[in-house]
Amino acid sequence: MADKIRIGVLGASGYTGADLVRLAARHPAMEIAVLTANSHAGKPMRDVFQHLSHIELPDLVTIEDAPWNEVDAVFCGLPHGTTQAITKEIFEKHPQTKIIDMSADFRLRDPAVYKEWYGLDHMATDIQGEAVYGLTELYRDAIREARLIACPGCYPTAVLLALVPLAKAAMIDASDIVIDAKSGVSGAGRSLKENTLFCEAGEGLSPYAVGKHRHMAEIEQEIGTAAGVPDLRVNFTPHLIPMSRGELCTSYVRLADGASARDLRHHLLETYAGEPFVTVADEDVLPRTQMVRGSNYVVVNVVPDRIPGRAIVISTLDNLVKGSAGQAIQNFNVAYGIDETTGIEQLPLFP
Amino acid sequence: MADKIRIGVLGASGYTGADLVRLAARHPAMEIAVLTANSHAGKPMRDVFQHLSHIELPDLVTIEDAPWNEVDAVFCGLPHGTTQAITKEIFEKHPQTKIIDMSADFRLRDPAVYKEWYGLDHMATDIQGEAVYGLTELYRDAIREARLIACPGCYPTAVLLALVPLAKAAMIDASDIVIDAKSGVSGAGRSLKENTLFCEAGEGLSPYAVGKHRHMAEIEQEIGTAAGVPDLRVNFTPHLIPMSRGELCTSYVRLADGASARDLRHHLLETYAGEPFVTVADEDVLPRTQMVRGSNYVVVNVVPDRIPGRAIVISTLDNLVKGSAGQAIQNFNVAYGIDETTGIEQLPLFP
Amino acid sequence: MADKIRIGVLGASGYTGADLVRLAARHPAMEIAVLTANSHAGKPMRDVFQHLSHIELPDLVTIEDAPWNEVDAVFCGLPHGTTQAITKEIFEKHPQTKIIDMSADFRLRDPAVYKEWYGLDHMATDIQGEAVYGLTELYRDAIREARLIACPGCYPTAVLLALVPLAKAAMIDASDIVIDAKSGVSGAGRSLKENTLFCEAGEGLSPYAVGKHRHMAEIEQEIGTAAGVPDLRVNFTPHLIPMSRGELCTSYVRLADGASARDLRHHLLETYAGEPFVTVADEDVLPRTQMVRGSNYVVVNVVPDRIPGRAIVISTLDNLVKGSAGQAIQNFNVAYGIDETTGIEQLPLFP
Amino acid sequence: MADKIRIGVLGASGYTGADLVRLAARHPAMEIAVLTANSHAGKPMRDVFQHLSHIELPDLVTIEDAPWNEVDAVFCGLPHGTTQAITKEIFEKHPQTKIIDMSADFRLRDPAVYKEWYGLDHMATDIQGEAVYGLTELYRDAIREARLIACPGCYPTAVLLALVPLAKAAMIDASDIVIDAKSGVSGAGRSLKENTLFCEAGEGLSPYAVGKHRHMAEIEQEIGTAAGVPDLRVNFTPHLIPMSRGELCTSYVRLADGASARDLRHHLLETYAGEPFVTVADEDVLPRTQMVRGSNYVVVNVVPDRIPGRAIVISTLDNLVKGSAGQAIQNFNVAYGIDETTGIEQLPLFP
Repeated sequence: MADKIRIGVLGASGYTGADLVRLAARHPAMEIAVLTANSHAGKPMRDVFQHLSHIELPDLVTIEDAPWNEVDAVFCGLPHGTTQAITKEIFEKHPQTKIIDMSADFRLRDPAVYKEWYGLDHMATDIQGEAVYGLTELYRDAIREARLIACPGCYPTAVLLALVPLAKAAMIDASDIVIDAKSGVSGAGRSLKENTLFCEAGEGLSPYAVGKHRHMAEIEQEIGTAAGVPDLRVNFTPHLIPMSRGELCTSYVRLADGASARDLRHHLLETYAGEPFVTVADEDVLPRTQMVRGSNYVVVNVVPDRIPGRAIVISTLDNLVKGSAGQAIQNFNVAYGIDETTGIEQLPLFP
Repeated sequence: MADKIRIGVLGASGYTGADLVRLAARHPAMEIAVLTANSHAGKPMRDVFQHLSHIELPDLVTIEDAPWNEVDAVFCGLPHGTTQAITKEIFEKHPQTKIIDMSADFRLRDPAVYKEWYGLDHMATDIQGEAVYGLTELYRDAIREARLIACPGCYPTAVLLALVPLAKAAMIDASDIVIDAKSGVSGAGRSLKENTLFCEAGEGLSPYAVGKHRHMAEIEQEIGTAAGVPDLRVNFTPHLIPMSRGELCTSYVRLADGASARDLRHHLLETYAGEPFVTVADEDVLPRTQMVRGSNYVVVNVVPDRIPGRAIVISTLDNLVKGSAGQAIQNFNVAYGIDETTGIEQLPLFP
Repeated sequence: MADKIRIGVLGASGYTGADLVRLAARHPAMEIAVLTANSHAGKPMRDVFQHLSHIELPDLVTIEDAPWNEVDAVFCGLPHGTTQAITKEIFEKHPQTKIIDMSADFRLRDPAVYKEWYGLDHMATDIQGEAVYGLTELYRDAIREARLIACPGCYPTAVLLALVPLAKAAMIDASDIVIDAKSGVSGAGRSLKENTLFCEAGEGLSPYAVGKHRHMAEIEQEIGTAAGVPDLRVNFTPHLIPMSRGELCTSYVRLADGASARDLRHHLLETYAGEPFVTVADEDVLPRTQMVRGSNYVVVNVVPDRIPGRAIVISTLDNLVKGSAGQAIQNFNVAYGIDETTGIEQLPLFP
Repeated sequence: MADKIRIGVLGASGYTGADLVRLAARHPAMEIAVLTANSHAGKPMRDVFQHLSHIELPDLVTIEDAPWNEVDAVFCGLPHGTTQAITKEIFEKHPQTKIIDMSADFRLRDPAVYKEWYGLDHMATDIQGEAVYGLTELYRDAIREARLIACPGCYPTAVLLALVPLAKAAMIDASDIVIDAKSGVSGAGRSLKENTLFCEAGEGLSPYAVGKHRHMAEIEQEIGTAAGVPDLRVNFTPHLIPMSRGELCTSYVRLADGASARDLRHHLLETYAGEPFVTVADEDVLPRTQMVRGSNYVVVNVVPDRIPGRAIVISTLDNLVKGSAGQAIQNFNVAYGIDETTGIEQLPLFP
């Protein structure tokens, strides 16, 4: 089909890349033209991901061998720090190409903050200014015009959709936020690590990266901006949960004077009234990852705390879909003027 | 859309019914008109299945209150023995309506066999003759014309797609088949039973219904027919596995003289060459449930046994999709002359 | 053996009762004399819990039929509100008998608080004054003399061991505590509930009873007492995790002026220096449920928060062992002057 | 305690070694003197296995640095092919030392068979003749006198305890045995492999090593010997199950003329009447891994097949306990004349 948009996927051998391929293969406006995976170059994709055996896909190639002039859009699913150079090169040499980056490389507006959290000098600071933070619901207008879309991390997507409208409306005290976050194991990727073995992560629960998780930087950047607090600090404490997909963030907030949990919920209801992928749960329904698994939906709710003046904000999403590949496609749709839900309308898989 | 086919779902509060709704809601030619669930009548569907909160659906009604004249097709997701009367009534009063039955009620051609296995007199034997066994790949032509389609059980779908072509071609000895079957817990349904509690089924593995599982009757009927052996008996031994979805059957067969595992595999490759949903795995690839989760695909393969003259046939599917709701929609598509893959093209969800 | 202490277990058909039997059967000073389970009376225990098939146990009897004069100690594993009358009767009629109650009935010193949280009038308020709160490490001396020991809930055990010493030492601000709690599914018991089915609780994560969980009352009672704050309120938010056993509480605390996370950790190290079952993890080790599964150990640690003036206190235990049956036996040992670790020395089962 | 037997563990950083340490640490007649782990030498054991943080253990050393003259018994938990030389050296230099090998190195009596299956020349064939196959119930007398005990693999332990007595009594046709085996993921060890990651093994089921699993050699050796069939071949097909511990083997057998499933069950009942660790389940009870998790028990049963002349034999155990470390300790007890159940009496952990 001549009219399809040809896409390339950088890093197709990770979970994020694979989930993008899963969705892209059924997207009516996409043609999967290039799949890269340096460590598996030359192999058919079905040797790397057997669940993709059912369809024809291009064989994997190295980044160096990929024909960038034959793609219209590039999705990057590689870890941070590995694709700044190639991203920059594509950005500069192929002005028609849009880049949708699922890595962390272009999320932080301040290179110093990037260096502080990621421990690396950024190699493409000159195009950082072109990057739009790809949280679709909050930056849709900018995404429409963007050539470089920096999709948020999975945790930030869950947290920010819940808290940014509340911070912006000054309904919560941005300086007193505790975020207890829980994630399935796929968030750790497919690389071989002892703590993600079945026998280590199964039937057990572990906090990790306490006080150090890099997603904190994005969360602080965006809530800080919304609240007008320059050097905001939040508590963000992630836990590894024995499930493959899904993420749930329980945020403990202090209410602004006069605000109630119910007010917060109504504000979210209004904010997201027309949004296709954000569901504010019924008043008595607590968000659960089971409500979103395998889908691009987010569920949020606000629950009264027994302690006066406080509320509990809960948000959940599938870390690989709305937390990564699904939101990337949502941004693609916006950027190319396609109906925003195209290719990502699947309802959650339950049980 | 005026052209959509209005469907009703009998038993929308079970896992099978819910998975049908999940898929039907995104099927471009279906309009969900009626959802029944006697024990939940009056409730919105999202109160019964929170993962369906994201879309508008009709409220649940009782079977008695359902406006059958307002639907074009009926899917039945209720347990065996509960809907023969209503099925018969709809069949007789609404001659334009097609019925796609996911229960066991019309699968067995011989009412005596039905009674033997299900312990009940069949209440609609007069329309049994109208029923077509809904294993799409094997009965596609008959399904095209059928008004009553009896979709196979989940296990029989996995077993029969693998073994019927081999039995029909006399490549295996139909009288010496051992089928060791493994299923995720969703196969047991959503009703409350101690053995399907998380703490009972989790981190453990249990054989069940050994020598007694009702799916054996279908398997014997269909392999017997294919092989021309009237009263065939097979060994069929199911096990409950700590996962929600997925089924894998390991069938141990004796080869006909001169046949090899490779011959069997080639025969399956030829048989299913044009089939959209049956994947014969690469020669060195063992089917795994991870290759099909959440999808309508089946994966089969034949592996040599170290014992001369024997082979191992492995098949896997998602019990709620190809094993139930997905195959029901596949049959719907065939019966209504729609492209067979419509609404069930999703690739497997992995991880 | 003539010298063994004969025990009876009220409610042997629940998980708590079964875990008590598992441990008691190997306890060198115990003889299991009576097992009650009204709904299963007359059955052998192995019909109710197959993992106990390997040993001889008395058949189950009703509470009414149990020969209380033939036991020296009674463990109660029934839900709150069901055994106050029988407890009182045994307490009054059998003055030599010690009662170790794993239910919630005698944990709250104020009957009004009991009524507020449990919705019932307490039927044995006259013996409430005899009850000792059975958190062994904190009430050991009183337990030695007690005839009625009210073992804490599983969550309170985890939380209080971590926070009471800190509150007592005024190292934290007791009025600003957020406790995000996570539990495996066995905490919900063996009764049939839809949300604890494998397919509902598996591969997913759910907050529950937010702002309403009854364990909050115990937590507030004990931290309030330690801190000298009469009507203390804490935030306590539990989540259901897809694992069978294990509990982890992440408590977010505000430090008293001058205190650091390191100070808190050292205080816990000192407090628990001689304790056989409380492990303060190494400085860089985050407690995980995998460190305690199947054992009577608790692991605690204090981690600096990136936000100045705050710290994160993490504690974990096995909800059925130190959170219930194991601690009950620990209290039994103390009450009978037996070495405290007898019968509960098993190391954690990992993986 | 001067009287304790000092043990060394070769390979304490694997799951088998760790489970041995877990049990040995509480064994009243053992003192853990040496722990080796070449890749972790110099570390405290609790850095490698956090669940062992609660007790004092010797730091890890290399095999080369281990003081073999300071131990009385050596347990080997390393992979096959890695410790033949050191085993031989210890065997020859330390004549008082008993070696209990949990690896595969000394299980196969015929070095040619070893080479065929393990692809290596055996480096200690001269002491192979000293090795006793450590299936305690079948070789107890020889184990009493042995200095080199070759503990069986986990699968062989489950299969042989069920089938050897039946083959020996000629109640089954040894030449027609199909063994469908299922194992939890810990059987694959702690080394980093993609297929044992949580996201790969979880919520899914995979056959593996079909027709090639090395445990087949032991099974054939022992059933062949029992049945008097020299070059016996059996079908043995393992599957990876999403649980950490536990193994269940479903063996499909043809009955000798006149024998019934009930006869087989009675024969096993008689055979194992006095055995402390083998439970023949009640007639209507199907063995489940939940009946043995974390314990040294084996459960077996025989179930009639619907096909005349056939039966189904089911056996289950915990692969790390009776399938490895527990049986090793059972053999230690036998070899040192200690009560056979010492240190391994724990009842199964359920749920």
